Amino acid sequence: MIAFPANRIPTDEAGERDWLRLARSERIGPVTFAELMRRYPTAGEALEALSDLAARGGAKRKVRVADAALVMREYEAAQAAGAQMLMLGSSAYPLNLARVEAAPPLLWCLGNSSVARPEMVAIVGARNASALGLRFTETLARALGEQGHAIASGLARGIDAAAHRGALETGTVAVLAGGVDRPWPPQNADLYDAIREKGAVLSERPMGYEGRARDFPRRNRIVSGLARGIVVAEGAERSGSLITARYAGEQGRDVMAVPGSPLDPRAGGCNLLIREGATLIRHADDVTEALTHLHADTAMLESEDEPWDAPMAQDDEALRLTVMELLGPHPTPVDDIVRRSGASSGFVSLVLLELDLAGRLQREPGGSGGLVG
Amino acid sequence: MIAFPANRIPTDEAGERDWLRLARSERIGPVTFAELMRRYPTAGEALEALSDLAARGGAKRKVRVADAALVMREYEAAQAAGAQMLMLGSSAYPLNLARVEAAPPLLWCLGNSSVARPEMVAIVGARNASALGLRFTETLARALGEQGHAIASGLARGIDAAAHRGALETGTVAVLAGGVDRPWPPQNADLYDAIREKGAVLSERPMGYEGRARDFPRRNRIVSGLARGIVVAEGAERSGSLITARYAGEQGRDVMAVPGSPLDPRAGGCNLLIREGATLIRHADDVTEALTHLHADTAMLESEDEPWDAPMAQDDEALRLTVMELLGPHPTPVDDIVRRSGASSGFVSLVLLELDLAGRLQREPGGSGGLVG
Repeated sequence: MIAFPANRIPTDEAGERDWLRLARSERIGPVTFAELMRRYPTAGEALEALSDLAARGGAKRKVRVADAALVMREYEAAQAAGAQMLMLGSSAYPLNLARVEAAPPLLWCLGNSSVARPEMVAIVGARNASALGLRFTETLARALGEQGHAIASGLARGIDAAAHRGALETGTVAVLAGGVDRPWPPQNADLYDAIREKGAVLSERPMGYEGRARDFPRRNRIVSGLARGIVVAEGAERSGSLITARYAGEQGRDVMAVPGSPLDPRAGGCNLLIREGATLIRHADDVTEALTHLHADTAMLESEDEPWDAPMAQDDEALRLTVMELLGPHPTPVDDIVRRSGASSGFVSLVLLELDLAGRLQREPGGSGGLVG
Repeated sequence: MIAFPANRIPTDEAGERDWLRLARSERIGPVTFAELMRRYPTAGEALEALSDLAARGGAKRKVRVADAALVMREYEAAQAAGAQMLMLGSSAYPLNLARVEAAPPLLWCLGNSSVARPEMVAIVGARNASALGLRFTETLARALGEQGHAIASGLARGIDAAAHRGALETGTVAVLAGGVDRPWPPQNADLYDAIREKGAVLSERPMGYEGRARDFPRRNRIVSGLARGIVVAEGAERSGSLITARYAGEQGRDVMAVPGSPLDPRAGGCNLLIREGATLIRHADDVTEALTHLHADTAMLESEDEPWDAPMAQDDEALRLTVMELLGPHPTPVDDIVRRSGASSGFVSLVLLELDLAGRLQREPGGSGGLVG
């Protein structure tokens, strides 16, 4: 769900740069970004308010707003590379991803952003895949493409590359852990070029940023977030692909897996997922059938239209203290705090925003939080 | 369920021969056999009553009772071979199989009948199995044996043979489509000898009978009937193993299957079964875990103790006609006939027995029947 009104999306370059600068500033995660854009009409006004908010939250020092020159450099690099900025809430932003909890405020896109359409399937799996697994994956991706699905993956060696290759002509999206202009790994440089030309390369990271292992989990959540469902084509029992699949399940994605012999360790993760309830995939039709069940659920989200909180009077110190006292070292659901404090949910989320910007809040998935200092 | 009292089981050789003769007589299927033993104190008395019952059912000719000399020859052949007669309802008869609908009235057993204990798992699969499949199966059977399970299978080439081999030291039961003294196929003759010595060979067929393809389905239903659950280790989408697994499911057996690559046609049946809800098996622990869920269900059957119908007056011609009129060319549930006719269920099943012996009844699974003439 996008938690702020669509009229927050900037329409000029200065507004885009403010949006980028806010996203690159200290302590501005996706949840905080969305909360700010709910309360301020533009990213520029949110940037101006950061210091005051953090101060009210008890910050020991000022929030470090991203350096304007650095942000200008990133923006210009993107323009030079021909990268498009996809802002959360805009029509160019991938719809499936926009509905995910903590969706990235912005993505850079090289290529054709419309390839990231709702009919997308993520395919992930082992880098050291078997010849059989690679062949199966490429065939599956091609068949899914012919059935109208675009294919999302992570441009890694092995299964990822096979998935992109199979879907190159019908539509594929590569999500990078580094900047969109930093293809990785080197052996997939040609594939990267082909995807840039025929599909789309996406990243939430700054232009020029070199991805590291610790960036992979967030990259993987974007891969699955883009898609309706995720297919694990080959993966061991303790593998990144298995973790990605579990996160995808938490995102509400249909989790699917390709079985293999129990004597093949590369099938261990897939077989385990199937035992845990993932759909066993034999061919593209199995994927299409599984996804048909989901269509009805997601269609209704389109019409969601909740009232937005206006920025409100922020001088109720007694109530602010009450809310803060209810937050302990253990994460507490926001609903609990609202109920126990008697404050409005808008006021509670404001106090949380202030604490967050002050570096004193630990946000947890599902909307709960705990104090860290 | 055994539908007749335990005191029907003969305790002398003459009684055993009557039991055998009744089972070998024309139109005496498992259901009719059980119905007769519910109504007559001994198989000998049931044999004597056959003609009258068939006549009342409108038989055009006499029921062909099995030739006494032929039955004596089978009985003596069994004694010479050292085969034990396991009579349905006796303590030597395998308990799981006794609870199956239409359980065979008798089995011949070579070897140690106590190997066919309740903790049994059936393993079936392709004759033209892969090397990987054979290796997996033998390992699985051995591990299950070490965990206390006996292994039932059909002595066929491929998966069957591998399952028996793996469980040879811990307990295995081979069910033949022909007589217990007619090992098949020839290349498993040594395995047959070893199973006779260390495990048990079972068949419901006459001594010396040569099994044919059309006997395989009944053989397979005994294999799964002996076990708590059935594992399909390898099998194509259109294979006998798949059909066996589906019947096993109807028998209330836990259906399990070993996955394989979708590119391997020999895994097609297994993958399909898993999609349909069969438990995915990676190793023996997965089997044990699946069967643990069943224990509770089957334990309660032990105490079942329903009153037995005594043979009753059979001269109510008007009611007999009413019952027969309610039977049409389409199968009708017995309960329906009881309700509509106002007759007792004992009387209705008597009329069905008479029609059956007259060759005019078509029995259907689940206790319904239709008239054939």
